[in-house]
Amino acid sequence: MAEVPGTLEGWFALHDFRKLDWARWKAVGAQEKAAILEEAVAFLNNAEKAADAPEGSSACYAIVGHKSDLMFLHLRPTLEQLGAIERAFNQTRLADFTTQTYSYVSVTELSLYEAYARGGSEDAAELAKSPFVQKRLKPQIPDMPYICFYPMNKKRGEVQNWYAAGMEERRLMMREHATTGRKYHDQITQMITGSTGLDDWEWGVTLFAVDALPIKKLVYEMRFDEVTAKYGEFGEFQVGTRVTPAKLPEILG
Amino acid sequence: MAEVPGTLEGWFALHDFRKLDWARWKAVGAQEKAAILEEAVAFLNNAEKAADAPEGSSACYAIVGHKSDLMFLHLRPTLEQLGAIERAFNQTRLADFTTQTYSYVSVTELSLYEAYARGGSEDAAELAKSPFVQKRLKPQIPDMPYICFYPMNKKRGEVQNWYAAGMEERRLMMREHATTGRKYHDQITQMITGSTGLDDWEWGVTLFAVDALPIKKLVYEMRFDEVTAKYGEFGEFQVGTRVTPAKLPEILG
Amino acid sequence: MAEVPGTLEGWFALHDFRKLDWARWKAVGAQEKAAILEEAVAFLNNAEKAADAPEGSSACYAIVGHKSDLMFLHLRPTLEQLGAIERAFNQTRLADFTTQTYSYVSVTELSLYEAYARGGSEDAAELAKSPFVQKRLKPQIPDMPYICFYPMNKKRGEVQNWYAAGMEERRLMMREHATTGRKYHDQITQMITGSTGLDDWEWGVTLFAVDALPIKKLVYEMRFDEVTAKYGEFGEFQVGTRVTPAKLPEILG
Amino acid sequence: MAEVPGTLEGWFALHDFRKLDWARWKAVGAQEKAAILEEAVAFLNNAEKAADAPEGSSACYAIVGHKSDLMFLHLRPTLEQLGAIERAFNQTRLADFTTQTYSYVSVTELSLYEAYARGGSEDAAELAKSPFVQKRLKPQIPDMPYICFYPMNKKRGEVQNWYAAGMEERRLMMREHATTGRKYHDQITQMITGSTGLDDWEWGVTLFAVDALPIKKLVYEMRFDEVTAKYGEFGEFQVGTRVTPAKLPEILG
Amino acid sequence: MAEVPGTLEGWFALHDFRKLDWARWKAVGAQEKAAILEEAVAFLNNAEKAADAPEGSSACYAIVGHKSDLMFLHLRPTLEQLGAIERAFNQTRLADFTTQTYSYVSVTELSLYEAYARGGSEDAAELAKSPFVQKRLKPQIPDMPYICFYPMNKKRGEVQNWYAAGMEERRLMMREHATTGRKYHDQITQMITGSTGLDDWEWGVTLFAVDALPIKKLVYEMRFDEVTAKYGEFGEFQVGTRVTPAKLPEILG
Repeated sequence: MAEVPGTLEGWFALHDFRKLDWARWKAVGAQEKAAILEEAVAFLNNAEKAADAPEGSSACYAIVGHKSDLMFLHLRPTLEQLGAIERAFNQTRLADFTTQTYSYVSVTELSLYEAYARGGSEDAAELAKSPFVQKRLKPQIPDMPYICFYPMNKKRGEVQNWYAAGMEERRLMMREHATTGRKYHDQITQMITGSTGLDDWEWGVTLFAVDALPIKKLVYEMRFDEVTAKYGEFGEFQVGTRVTPAKLPEILG
Repeated sequence: MAEVPGTLEGWFALHDFRKLDWARWKAVGAQEKAAILEEAVAFLNNAEKAADAPEGSSACYAIVGHKSDLMFLHLRPTLEQLGAIERAFNQTRLADFTTQTYSYVSVTELSLYEAYARGGSEDAAELAKSPFVQKRLKPQIPDMPYICFYPMNKKRGEVQNWYAAGMEERRLMMREHATTGRKYHDQITQMITGSTGLDDWEWGVTLFAVDALPIKKLVYEMRFDEVTAKYGEFGEFQVGTRVTPAKLPEILG
Repeated sequence: MAEVPGTLEGWFALHDFRKLDWARWKAVGAQEKAAILEEAVAFLNNAEKAADAPEGSSACYAIVGHKSDLMFLHLRPTLEQLGAIERAFNQTRLADFTTQTYSYVSVTELSLYEAYARGGSEDAAELAKSPFVQKRLKPQIPDMPYICFYPMNKKRGEVQNWYAAGMEERRLMMREHATTGRKYHDQITQMITGSTGLDDWEWGVTLFAVDALPIKKLVYEMRFDEVTAKYGEFGEFQVGTRVTPAKLPEILG
Repeated sequence: MAEVPGTLEGWFALHDFRKLDWARWKAVGAQEKAAILEEAVAFLNNAEKAADAPEGSSACYAIVGHKSDLMFLHLRPTLEQLGAIERAFNQTRLADFTTQTYSYVSVTELSLYEAYARGGSEDAAELAKSPFVQKRLKPQIPDMPYICFYPMNKKRGEVQNWYAAGMEERRLMMREHATTGRKYHDQITQMITGSTGLDDWEWGVTLFAVDALPIKKLVYEMRFDEVTAKYGEFGEFQVGTRVTPAKLPEILG
Repeated sequence: MAEVPGTLEGWFALHDFRKLDWARWKAVGAQEKAAILEEAVAFLNNAEKAADAPEGSSACYAIVGHKSDLMFLHLRPTLEQLGAIERAFNQTRLADFTTQTYSYVSVTELSLYEAYARGGSEDAAELAKSPFVQKRLKPQIPDMPYICFYPMNKKRGEVQNWYAAGMEERRLMMREHATTGRKYHDQITQMITGSTGLDDWEWGVTLFAVDALPIKKLVYEMRFDEVTAKYGEFGEFQVGTRVTPAKLPEILG
């Protein structure tokens, strides 16, 4: 058995993707539409304030392409709170015009490969208390206009198997990978969430960006990192732009 | 041909996943909704008492994410009884507002790798009578707030093939795996069900947990076990929280 | 090119899976429902008598789980007759409450690996006339309460390739496999149908059983047979229980 | 780069699969149904005469199983003509009772492996003019009662890669394959269409047969040809029987 | 880590595929249909003029086969503009008769393998300014009657891994590939768009052609290029013909 890297976890995350039935939505009269939008804006406002829980963070995005039209991202301390806010949106009238095309359940995660290198679990316990780590594990969603979400696995192939590789070998690959990420530090804020046991892939990657092009450039460059070239397996990618509560009515025409 | 490990089996299991049509459900009037919920609560109460069979156990869970909204877990002595209780729910009016998005048919299973190591089938026959084993094979669903379900296979790859590995090699890997599981003994109760010939994967894994985080931590740690790293293949994961009959109306708003 | 084993074929087989729209079905009035059921019972009675063809055999099963509710199994001398009986069910009013979720088109098959070993095609021609073989190729569906159906392929991998293995090697693996099957002789009757060129997998396996547990135990034990461990690839498994015409109204509530 | 075999192409082909909504179709009154069928028969008659184009060939088949109910096969000189005839059927009232479950876009193809062996491209140019080749590339659909369609690829695996194999090696495998096909010459007429760049697989295979069993036997025997055993990858198989315009009303009840 | 080739990017691209509900569409009265078509033609005219953005290019195509009926191709400077024009079509009444069956989000890309060979990034910066490159990155959609779109990956297999191959090895393979493409220069104009981080595959390939046959011949010939034979992985292919605004009413009958 290969050595297991410690991990720190924080808030649970729900990425909730919705596709709008435009034909039915457009058929709604102007007055009713305004009321429905008012309710949806109130839902989003409350979600952003995490009014439904002691703490947390939420945001909404307009997704480009056929996979979905809207994505709600909710970060909350517990899994129950995610279920509750998912149901709360289902209780809005806007939800009646949407189908839930995809979702992802995960929890913010910090891998302790580097902490282990510096002396193992004691160091990790200390690390967990640092404000830097707390901010990573309980992150306020940054006010950035672009988003990209995709889930991923580390390959367990018959020849190349991440989970059978040595701890040090994995640590060095993760370090190289982090170095690539830091090059885009000004343009992209990354949120890593773990999902083994919670959803179909092992991790979710959420990229918040100042523009769409750096997303493409970062993900392309990372594909040449040894950890990705050899071990990365990816699910579906969804990209879009931030929709503040005030902007929601505009997006929905 | 590799040696076949003996297995003991107990109750058949049906994991029955349902997605609610919220738009149609919300359109139901308050009085009718109350009547429908009353009928659903009665169904769940009877199922939990296994009123439909000589013995058994049932529970309901609220699933987080798009895959489903509710999961009913039924354990019964026979496959017919599972079919009957599935149809019984279909006869409720609540069922008319749901679609059956997934299900899993299996039977509780205990692998006798360790029994074989201690002297083979005689020992196994003895083992089957023990109260400990009977409790594993005919388990009352524990009163724990979180659940995780996923189906899995052991890989039959061109290089790494569980079913061609030696009995002793497999036994040692299963022992390591059990050791990882025992670390989470206080937090997670595991139910293994076998499904070769019954459903699309070879096993179903149901984790009952005191909290959601240990589920993530256990499944992640196990991924580094040799048996998982080399041979584990996984289907979809669904996670959620227990819904007692009394709590069902609240979940359905 | 590896030597091709001779095969004998008999009746064509259609496994026709249907899922019931329970909500719509339950909304039908008692009188109309009785008329619809009467027509469906008549259809099944006629199918069981093969009234639509010179000879054949049919049966209906209640499937457990989300994949389907009913499976009709039809064995007939020609492919046209299968198409005709599929359309005949579509003409019933019960069919209007179902969707056809899956089906499988194949033809009963006997592989002549052993005949070849005993002297090749002359022996095979003789074999075809024997009552034992005729019963295998034109089987009356046995009166057994449980069923399991799954389609399968023999792997053509980059390393392990059934179709490139030698005839004698394949014969020995098939013999071992048959030996495992014979252990369950009292509990399970197996029907093998070939489907290269007819459907998406190479074979269909239909197990008729006295109980559900032997199905699980047989399929699990066979997974350790060399032919399965190395070369078996499986589609979806569906299991259920026999529904006689008289029992059909009860199953449909 | 491996040497590319020359190919000759002729008519474009559309395999257009439709599933009937039997419930809605049966609800249509007798008079309206007759009018709809008359229009559909006229469409099929015109299609068979290629009245929509300078030349071509069309036929209709009743498919057995859940994948579809009808398949229209259209051969026309240009891709536009295929699009036009697809839309022409969509303009019929019968089309309103169908969903287009699958289709395949390809073009008749003759691989010049043997021509190359006999002296390369000069020989190929000559070949294209021969009546035999013209009949292969612009084939009138034969008047045979059974059909089988499936798409296929040649494997580009990490070990076995058709597109990296030598020209002579590929030619010899194709010759062996053709020899197997010729054994069924009296019973099966094969039409090969190429679809790289046109649809999701590299080739479509359409088998016209005097009976269903030879289809099964041919495809099974070919699976042992080296070219198939090592390199063949297959999509879905659909089988059925010819429906002449006069027979269409009968099939649709 | 393998050396990362520089890339230049230009306009973002949305391939927006729609399937028409012919039954509902045909039921619309002539006058209303004319009004709906007028609006759709106006949408397409404005899109072709990029009236919604400072610059860009758009076109519409009729797709053959079941996957879709229409494809809108939009090239715009920003991802937001793609989202906006997608929503603008959803606001048309014609959109109410369509479902969005597929889409692809990418950005025009020029790989700098050759520039690197000639002296690296300085050269690349210079290259970006050249009119030739600007035309590649901000291309007016050519006035050609045929189109083919497919997404693709470079394989990251356990044996053959593009992202672990050396820069020079990759450059030589790309050069060979370009040579094949140039043979079809008179008949096919190719547009490469990159989509790592933006959609599910790494690249989109759009071929504009004077006829359908060269598409088939080019893609087939390229399959023997080493880069494709060893590393090419492909998604679904869709082919069709250009639909100018004036021709749209004719295509929709």
